Amino acid sequence: MASIHTTFPPITLHDKVVKYPNHEGSVPLTNKRVDSVIGWLREEQIDFALITSPTQIYYLTDFHCHPHERFLGLFLFPDKDPLLVCPTLEEDRARQAGWASEIVTCPDGEDPWLQIVPSLHARGIHSAKQIAVEKDTLPLSRAEGLLQHYPGATLLAAETTLQRFRVQKDTKEIEIMTVAAQMADEAITIGQAALTEGCTETEIASLIEYEMKKRGADGMAFDTMVLFGEKTGLPHGSPGNRQLQSGDMVLFDLGIVHQGYNSDITRTFGYRSCTPEQEKIYHTVLAALEAALALCRPGVRFGDLDTAARQVIENAGYGRYFTHRLGHGLGLEAHEYPSVHGHNDDLLEEGMVFTIEPGIYIPDLGGVRIEDDVLITTTGYQLLTSSPKKWQIIG
Amino acid sequence: MASIHTTFPPITLHDKVVKYPNHEGSVPLTNKRVDSVIGWLREEQIDFALITSPTQIYYLTDFHCHPHERFLGLFLFPDKDPLLVCPTLEEDRARQAGWASEIVTCPDGEDPWLQIVPSLHARGIHSAKQIAVEKDTLPLSRAEGLLQHYPGATLLAAETTLQRFRVQKDTKEIEIMTVAAQMADEAITIGQAALTEGCTETEIASLIEYEMKKRGADGMAFDTMVLFGEKTGLPHGSPGNRQLQSGDMVLFDLGIVHQGYNSDITRTFGYRSCTPEQEKIYHTVLAALEAALALCRPGVRFGDLDTAARQVIENAGYGRYFTHRLGHGLGLEAHEYPSVHGHNDDLLEEGMVFTIEPGIYIPDLGGVRIEDDVLITTTGYQLLTSSPKKWQIIG
Repeated sequence: MASIHTTFPPITLHDKVVKYPNHEGSVPLTNKRVDSVIGWLREEQIDFALITSPTQIYYLTDFHCHPHERFLGLFLFPDKDPLLVCPTLEEDRARQAGWASEIVTCPDGEDPWLQIVPSLHARGIHSAKQIAVEKDTLPLSRAEGLLQHYPGATLLAAETTLQRFRVQKDTKEIEIMTVAAQMADEAITIGQAALTEGCTETEIASLIEYEMKKRGADGMAFDTMVLFGEKTGLPHGSPGNRQLQSGDMVLFDLGIVHQGYNSDITRTFGYRSCTPEQEKIYHTVLAALEAALALCRPGVRFGDLDTAARQVIENAGYGRYFTHRLGHGLGLEAHEYPSVHGHNDDLLEEGMVFTIEPGIYIPDLGGVRIEDDVLITTTGYQLLTSSPKKWQIIG
Repeated sequence: MASIHTTFPPITLHDKVVKYPNHEGSVPLTNKRVDSVIGWLREEQIDFALITSPTQIYYLTDFHCHPHERFLGLFLFPDKDPLLVCPTLEEDRARQAGWASEIVTCPDGEDPWLQIVPSLHARGIHSAKQIAVEKDTLPLSRAEGLLQHYPGATLLAAETTLQRFRVQKDTKEIEIMTVAAQMADEAITIGQAALTEGCTETEIASLIEYEMKKRGADGMAFDTMVLFGEKTGLPHGSPGNRQLQSGDMVLFDLGIVHQGYNSDITRTFGYRSCTPEQEKIYHTVLAALEAALALCRPGVRFGDLDTAARQVIENAGYGRYFTHRLGHGLGLEAHEYPSVHGHNDDLLEEGMVFTIEPGIYIPDLGGVRIEDDVLITTTGYQLLTSSPKKWQIIG
């Protein structure tokens, strides 16, 4: 196994203060959230909802749990006490999070339905016509288990409704997301300052993550992306031992988790020098971002944002190198509803938060992406991320 | 927002060498792996398999892709060319990984079946009686999409078979997993050395992650767990601002990803002093681990390992505080088949790798877990993790 010599950047202690207090506890449980779902079940005459995505359960109960392959589920009924199902070893944490209704725990290796069905029967739920589930994440085997006990029931997709309840962020959520975005800005500054000729992508990515956790980040929204040179031409490349050279484009794509909420930012720079083509690509991407931002206000169609940005890139002759949608919703998940793509006819609403992130990726040559987090306000928008976007050659 | 004063440990550069070369590329694609699946499809007269779990696709194709909400799928047929479906922006990476057969890409926001069905029809697959899918991970909405185009088909669970093909690690895999386990041992040493009175769980966890990435870890198998004092009483607690005090138990649970493969280790120590009860709990957990290890050889029932360890803990009067299964399989996933629980009648086989991790968790008081990675050999077992397990008071 060959060793790779590298100059790992020394770490300095900027301060001895956690600037962003860690997440222990969270947004307080508002029963209003559970009540909205229950109201919907009543309205649609749905027998019950089985909610299984950890994020949605967290949003509704304040209980954060990664069950791995174990059963985690929240049963909500139009007119009965809710029921939380979680692994035995998570019961204490669920109680600590404030869950006051019934908990059913499932010992490892046993069929969870053996424990669940008696609690459903105790509520008088012996059969069901309509059950709401999250079809985009509920595994087929779980759906089959459910239908074995409620044969003939129709499974309705709950995603759209559950996501709609979550899409307009309230004041407290916006406050948290603003801090998450500020932390992302700070992470870009840290990464930029650490670049030295010969450093590797991985070492800069690790340094950013360490420094942000030191400052109190709950975690990163996804694996921090730092790409140099031709590797910026891969929209989903991952950091490796590529060493920084003069003339490289440098791309950072990263996000911070703060009190459960995600930020997501991308910035691209030139290192020491650049070609006129690199600069042209950069300005094209920036113009595409600005064209989309110019449309951001309540009532505008999401698809129109994608079209406006794509048009700028196509006009500059790079259309075939913009290979992904314009952006995605942001909140408790790093990617959530809405999806900002050309076919989305949904309209922008006050309180929505999403990314706008046009890019141009030319294989072997390199790429540029610029990404901001956008909050829709009463009359327009506000950027949550505020790192400079002017073309910069650094180093 | 109150600032929390803390003494973040200074980081020293132990060396300037990446000890463990990063993962770019991977275990070379052996067509033998795809051939095994195809052989199974022929034998069982299955029309085709749709494989959707990113790890399984990686194992079969050498193409590693996190599709987020996008469609990623590998169609395998008994007697036709395979078909890979991936997001447009991942096509280049799939080719770079060596995929030589057809790729279908799906633009964001469009129904992926519009792109997929013509390629299936081109192979003469206009209807199907039996389709193999991974039922434990395939989302219900994807299954419904599949059945819309192949109505009346029976969906068969492919998990057990696919996991069986993967369960016996080959020489190359064992070599990689041995290094991953050595890296986990090193991470424990780093964490242990960094402990100082008043340090927080989060800062030690971040430091471990940074130091290991510096040494060339591809990533962590899961969020590094560092718990102090009463927080060790939560089997799935997460690091926070709890500060280390004399008399605390200290629990590390962490894993390294090396060339795609995971390690997973837990060690528990006393800090500066301990009570006789803490020491008794530690020795009980260690005896439980050793009781399970004593049974490790091909032909033994998995359930018997769990029973043997549980018996030791029950005999010591702590039975109700051991709230989880004994362990889990380890490989490309941090948790994979087999599950080491009392009801598992499967037998140990040479080449299997799994964890053994008994624990005792007493709410408010604290807990102990000790975890090793075990490789089954021709006649017995070999520990991949080798950090000392003798009871230690450190600091």
